[in-house]
Amino acid sequence: MTKPYDTLLITGAAGRLGTELRRGLAPLANRLRLADRTEVRDLQPNEEAMVFDLADADAVLKATQGVDAIVHFGGAPLETAWETILDSNIRGSYNIYEGARKNGARRVVYASSVHAIGYHTLEAHIDTDAPVRPDSLYGVSKCFVESLSRFYWDKFGLESVCLRIFSSFPEPADRRMLWSWLSFDDCVRLVTASLTAPRVGHTISFGMSDNSLKPVDNSKAGHLGYLPQDNTERFRAAVEAQKPPLDPKAPAAFYLGGWFVDIGHPDDEASK
Amino acid sequence: MTKPYDTLLITGAAGRLGTELRRGLAPLANRLRLADRTEVRDLQPNEEAMVFDLADADAVLKATQGVDAIVHFGGAPLETAWETILDSNIRGSYNIYEGARKNGARRVVYASSVHAIGYHTLEAHIDTDAPVRPDSLYGVSKCFVESLSRFYWDKFGLESVCLRIFSSFPEPADRRMLWSWLSFDDCVRLVTASLTAPRVGHTISFGMSDNSLKPVDNSKAGHLGYLPQDNTERFRAAVEAQKPPLDPKAPAAFYLGGWFVDIGHPDDEASK
Amino acid sequence: MTKPYDTLLITGAAGRLGTELRRGLAPLANRLRLADRTEVRDLQPNEEAMVFDLADADAVLKATQGVDAIVHFGGAPLETAWETILDSNIRGSYNIYEGARKNGARRVVYASSVHAIGYHTLEAHIDTDAPVRPDSLYGVSKCFVESLSRFYWDKFGLESVCLRIFSSFPEPADRRMLWSWLSFDDCVRLVTASLTAPRVGHTISFGMSDNSLKPVDNSKAGHLGYLPQDNTERFRAAVEAQKPPLDPKAPAAFYLGGWFVDIGHPDDEASK
Amino acid sequence: MTKPYDTLLITGAAGRLGTELRRGLAPLANRLRLADRTEVRDLQPNEEAMVFDLADADAVLKATQGVDAIVHFGGAPLETAWETILDSNIRGSYNIYEGARKNGARRVVYASSVHAIGYHTLEAHIDTDAPVRPDSLYGVSKCFVESLSRFYWDKFGLESVCLRIFSSFPEPADRRMLWSWLSFDDCVRLVTASLTAPRVGHTISFGMSDNSLKPVDNSKAGHLGYLPQDNTERFRAAVEAQKPPLDPKAPAAFYLGGWFVDIGHPDDEASK
Amino acid sequence: MTKPYDTLLITGAAGRLGTELRRGLAPLANRLRLADRTEVRDLQPNEEAMVFDLADADAVLKATQGVDAIVHFGGAPLETAWETILDSNIRGSYNIYEGARKNGARRVVYASSVHAIGYHTLEAHIDTDAPVRPDSLYGVSKCFVESLSRFYWDKFGLESVCLRIFSSFPEPADRRMLWSWLSFDDCVRLVTASLTAPRVGHTISFGMSDNSLKPVDNSKAGHLGYLPQDNTERFRAAVEAQKPPLDPKAPAAFYLGGWFVDIGHPDDEASK
Amino acid sequence: MTKPYDTLLITGAAGRLGTELRRGLAPLANRLRLADRTEVRDLQPNEEAMVFDLADADAVLKATQGVDAIVHFGGAPLETAWETILDSNIRGSYNIYEGARKNGARRVVYASSVHAIGYHTLEAHIDTDAPVRPDSLYGVSKCFVESLSRFYWDKFGLESVCLRIFSSFPEPADRRMLWSWLSFDDCVRLVTASLTAPRVGHTISFGMSDNSLKPVDNSKAGHLGYLPQDNTERFRAAVEAQKPPLDPKAPAAFYLGGWFVDIGHPDDEASK
Repeated sequence: MTKPYDTLLITGAAGRLGTELRRGLAPLANRLRLADRTEVRDLQPNEEAMVFDLADADAVLKATQGVDAIVHFGGAPLETAWETILDSNIRGSYNIYEGARKNGARRVVYASSVHAIGYHTLEAHIDTDAPVRPDSLYGVSKCFVESLSRFYWDKFGLESVCLRIFSSFPEPADRRMLWSWLSFDDCVRLVTASLTAPRVGHTISFGMSDNSLKPVDNSKAGHLGYLPQDNTERFRAAVEAQKPPLDPKAPAAFYLGGWFVDIGHPDDEASK
Repeated sequence: MTKPYDTLLITGAAGRLGTELRRGLAPLANRLRLADRTEVRDLQPNEEAMVFDLADADAVLKATQGVDAIVHFGGAPLETAWETILDSNIRGSYNIYEGARKNGARRVVYASSVHAIGYHTLEAHIDTDAPVRPDSLYGVSKCFVESLSRFYWDKFGLESVCLRIFSSFPEPADRRMLWSWLSFDDCVRLVTASLTAPRVGHTISFGMSDNSLKPVDNSKAGHLGYLPQDNTERFRAAVEAQKPPLDPKAPAAFYLGGWFVDIGHPDDEASK
Repeated sequence: MTKPYDTLLITGAAGRLGTELRRGLAPLANRLRLADRTEVRDLQPNEEAMVFDLADADAVLKATQGVDAIVHFGGAPLETAWETILDSNIRGSYNIYEGARKNGARRVVYASSVHAIGYHTLEAHIDTDAPVRPDSLYGVSKCFVESLSRFYWDKFGLESVCLRIFSSFPEPADRRMLWSWLSFDDCVRLVTASLTAPRVGHTISFGMSDNSLKPVDNSKAGHLGYLPQDNTERFRAAVEAQKPPLDPKAPAAFYLGGWFVDIGHPDDEASK
Repeated sequence: MTKPYDTLLITGAAGRLGTELRRGLAPLANRLRLADRTEVRDLQPNEEAMVFDLADADAVLKATQGVDAIVHFGGAPLETAWETILDSNIRGSYNIYEGARKNGARRVVYASSVHAIGYHTLEAHIDTDAPVRPDSLYGVSKCFVESLSRFYWDKFGLESVCLRIFSSFPEPADRRMLWSWLSFDDCVRLVTASLTAPRVGHTISFGMSDNSLKPVDNSKAGHLGYLPQDNTERFRAAVEAQKPPLDPKAPAAFYLGGWFVDIGHPDDEASK
Repeated sequence: MTKPYDTLLITGAAGRLGTELRRGLAPLANRLRLADRTEVRDLQPNEEAMVFDLADADAVLKATQGVDAIVHFGGAPLETAWETILDSNIRGSYNIYEGARKNGARRVVYASSVHAIGYHTLEAHIDTDAPVRPDSLYGVSKCFVESLSRFYWDKFGLESVCLRIFSSFPEPADRRMLWSWLSFDDCVRLVTASLTAPRVGHTISFGMSDNSLKPVDNSKAGHLGYLPQDNTERFRAAVEAQKPPLDPKAPAAFYLGGWFVDIGHPDDEASK
Repeated sequence: MTKPYDTLLITGAAGRLGTELRRGLAPLANRLRLADRTEVRDLQPNEEAMVFDLADADAVLKATQGVDAIVHFGGAPLETAWETILDSNIRGSYNIYEGARKNGARRVVYASSVHAIGYHTLEAHIDTDAPVRPDSLYGVSKCFVESLSRFYWDKFGLESVCLRIFSSFPEPADRRMLWSWLSFDDCVRLVTASLTAPRVGHTISFGMSDNSLKPVDNSKAGHLGYLPQDNTERFRAAVEAQKPPLDPKAPAAFYLGGWFVDIGHPDDEASK
């Protein structure tokens, strides 16, 4: 059967999650172009690799040539210094969108983050239309790309799905992840749904597995057709045995962003 | 066990869907009265048939005598000339409601349509309270019956369920139906729920199977107790192999009404 | 200064309100074409008159030739027999919209009515997006035109404003009108705003003066720029002296439609 | 593994539901303190019992000493005389909250009731933020505790979950319970989720099993992680065979509170 | 002209606000019955006085005989000990509602308070349907009467308006009152509107003058027809000169309840 | 009388609007510090000036020393090249917020823009919580500062008001400005309200005069106490005489952003 895409660009492809995506997205494209700042290993016959910084506009323009869709998971993955955020996430993502526009890519799937809305509470049960409340400069950069991609859709017709990934790790590592976890397999399912849904326009979706505790409402992304199949129940006993409960009045316990709300300004932290 | 109804009138009973309803609704009534413009075949012992036009007020008044509930699936099933819409769907449905009122029927289940709200987008994720946006004169006539039935409930206490059926076919025939399909079995489940729910007042419900892609929110019809049991996943590979994807910017791809939004005025079409 | 329109068609022009509109809308067009079933009197130099039934499609098609906009206030103005509603309001309005489409009119301002939403309560404080709840066949026909005009906008780009007029009389005649009254001057202001607003698409607006008691929320029609300047306070003492209060538990006191909710089916009433 | 609580106080522990809670909550605490007006039987090794009236502030203060969390299911369980409601439910619950505050309990799970919102209709599909509409003095007392517990959370940081239990009986006893039933096992699951969710602040949750007919929206309590596992389908045939349907226009059929809306004032009833 | 009511009962009539109401409501009734725990002075010819405690059910039943409507402003006006709240506000208001029901009064206007929703923030811009968040036991008692009166309306058809009065003082006394002030004249206007609106059912209204800073949305009470005519601008310069601004991060600055959120539990305060 | 602030920093102070703010805000502070890339003329005794680029972090840090509040109107005022947007608006505003945080300023009033939500339609009547839909890179940079300032409030307690200014010009220059105009006097009133409101936390407000056509809902900013006193009616005749109406189907007519939605990518435009 024909694959939905000929060439798919994956940024941030050298990391652990990138490895999962290489495996999981292979059925969707004839060729995967893998981009990262560091070399990608174990290249498969259907893969090609490019090493560059996202802040390098020329390199990004070149990397997006001949690409049908982009899975943009690259950039700084955590709170860090402003200059890094500015270069890797803001300037870098702008370069990706410009590359996509100039080279005619049809769709971008972007790894946004819970940290774009980290200062909303669990009890608020927000949906994907709630105003942003970033909990970090990292989160602010995610908001930037969400609005940038909205602009590229409204004005240039470039489709985007922004995935607000909660906690994508091999296993839930603490009590918060018992509700915030996104399994690698569900992450692949979510990106696959985002790439294959017939129409996405500009869509924001939360990214969690089917955990029993549900603090947000993802129904407005129902047109993606994402059906998570994992949950954290099989990890619960072990996690609860190893990690004491958080004080329910601690900010990290009631804000969606978890411990991100507790960290200070990265430039202050750096100077400590 | 006692059946919920003694006599049930089904309009539009001669068609393919009518055949499914005859089979599926038999457990709900001692007697099915089958109405259509053309003769209904293979009458069963629990069935009786009547042939007449819905626009014939006297015939409808007679057909609704002694009826406890009405499953009103008759009338023009597609976009067509105004005079036909006016006679079959507007005048015809008025006759049904007047017959129900004068003869004391308790409940009407009406085959409304996605085309009453065809100009809403998938991304809007509307619920059943959203303002109507018909995509055709056919859709306008569905809106008419939805408001007419609201009036008969508010003023005369005649209960109605208006089912906005998306795509009820033997199998999903194109990529849109991968999300819009209502299997015949689920259609029977939906009508059954509408007839047996303890209280419906005036209820509008979307009509789809449990497909993975969910572009609308049917929670306000939760008091019907409809639980779809089919979905389109087993048809997906075959459909996707045979039908190319729609351009995501094509109106037929992002409006709920699909290709109905592309057709012109029926009176123009007729004169072509 | 150039007038916004060259030729304006006013239907229902022979009545009391029509007379007000002739006077009030004169500044908006070089020529007013006045249509009614009965002859319009006292024609002014800027006016021309046509006598026909709205149900006569050919006559309507002719009357809409060379027209830039239509103020459609014709048709049955009260609850009446179904056949009259069907001919004058449903078929008649369809003819107007077809005439507008075929002859290239740019905008229609339609006299809808509170009776399209007459079964909502004052306490519900609905806005213009609330689902319709007609209180009469007359109200059902208003809902029909609201959905028909939505269709003509979405598919054919013909703009419409549907004015849900509450009580447009020379003076408030009873206690309900102390909140539901629309003065003739405010009615002219509302139609003028509807004709001159830069963009209306398909807009529904409530039609009331600036009375102190405000049972509905018209903010979603704010882009019309309608600013009522009358209110009922100067009539209050006289009305309250002459009319006893309604029982607050009487349907006519708590439904927006007032006494319309108390009348039975017009066909029953006729046979009394 | 460590249990989440050391000592748990259960009020209303002598009744049928109390017996279920004793069994079901045993895994959550080292010790269950059981309180009721009547003696609790068959004390287990992990249990201790106290007999007192909730209206006795000193007794309640003593009973809440050394308690980590309280499952407050005591008080009058049905509509009854005002003086009883005032003493058992209003004064009694105040005593519980004061005891919890003074003795440093961390969380209270309170048996509120559908009767706090009994005058909402099924068709309204309210969520847990809808304004209260009690159907009885009993329901008014439930509203009182919901607002009292909100106050104790906002001002004193004492967490509460208010469970609006619909119909918790061994089996569904009538047609209404086909949708309103909460199985004992699901009731235990709901209380367990309320006690173990990492953060509840002040949460209101509906309490029903996973019945097919869903008249309310519980998504705002999703952070409890309650997953019902029972439903009424296996009882449907028997219930429908024994109980005739309600008139869909009867208040008891369309208000959530069921037959509670039909009873008069308890002080009138008492004097009959 | 006939007055709307024959006899009006005012509770809490001996205080400063009671004096304003006596003067302001005189045009609405032939006779004012004035109730308070202390003697009302300067009785006018249209007035009669009764001295009793609201907690005395027999006295209240007697005082409500022959009364057409009740303006219930009595009870504890501030945070105070639980036993006082319970007797004066909870038991006392129950007595008023029972008296109204048994004696056939048509409407009650109740002095609820901002303190029923004191833990909402200014930035939330709540409307009158927002869930309650009392800031004191006093506020909890206001919530109690709001739900009690809802019950008396839904079950017994006794109309009520609950006025959430913000700050009704002769003049704004601090910076918060620059937005929360309700002038005495506007208070009289609000009670008058509540007594004369044709239909109120059960209505909750905020009570503020037309101050420029508007932290809440009162549009759902629009059917009262209340039009405030005062505002605080003429007091601004003097208030700002005398009172320093609050820290914008202080709870008393961002919660609607103001300094009420800072006070502790009244029983603790009493024992200090 | 004491002024609310000692030192106020105004960025973008050399422009026409800056001149208005210098005059209008003088009553609010003992000293105005005026910043711009070009020299500010006609310094008054209460003023001091600094010339620097916002992209210069050290200069901004120095300029924000000893400042109590900042009126941040500097940066690129129109769509322009990405590198300029990045330096002047993104990096520059970050510098302002870091300066404010490090130097302890209490509040920032930021000139956001309608172009942050330019792709919403007039008919949508959005409020300030609607998701952003920027119509330009300029608009994307406004969204960036709105989310950045939200972060500085949530994490560091620095208050901000983001003013989405529509069209602030000496007079309305075209038909769109008949509804989008913000007079200079009203602009000063809006900034004054933002600086003097007792509590703003993080507030977004639309910025328009009191024009009759109202396409958005600003009620959620009611706690600012902004009362516009100008409107465009006195300019209407002249504007309508000189400017032809827009086609109501033109994007510039129905999107809030006006002609901004028609311009292409600035980097394409530059290379033309």
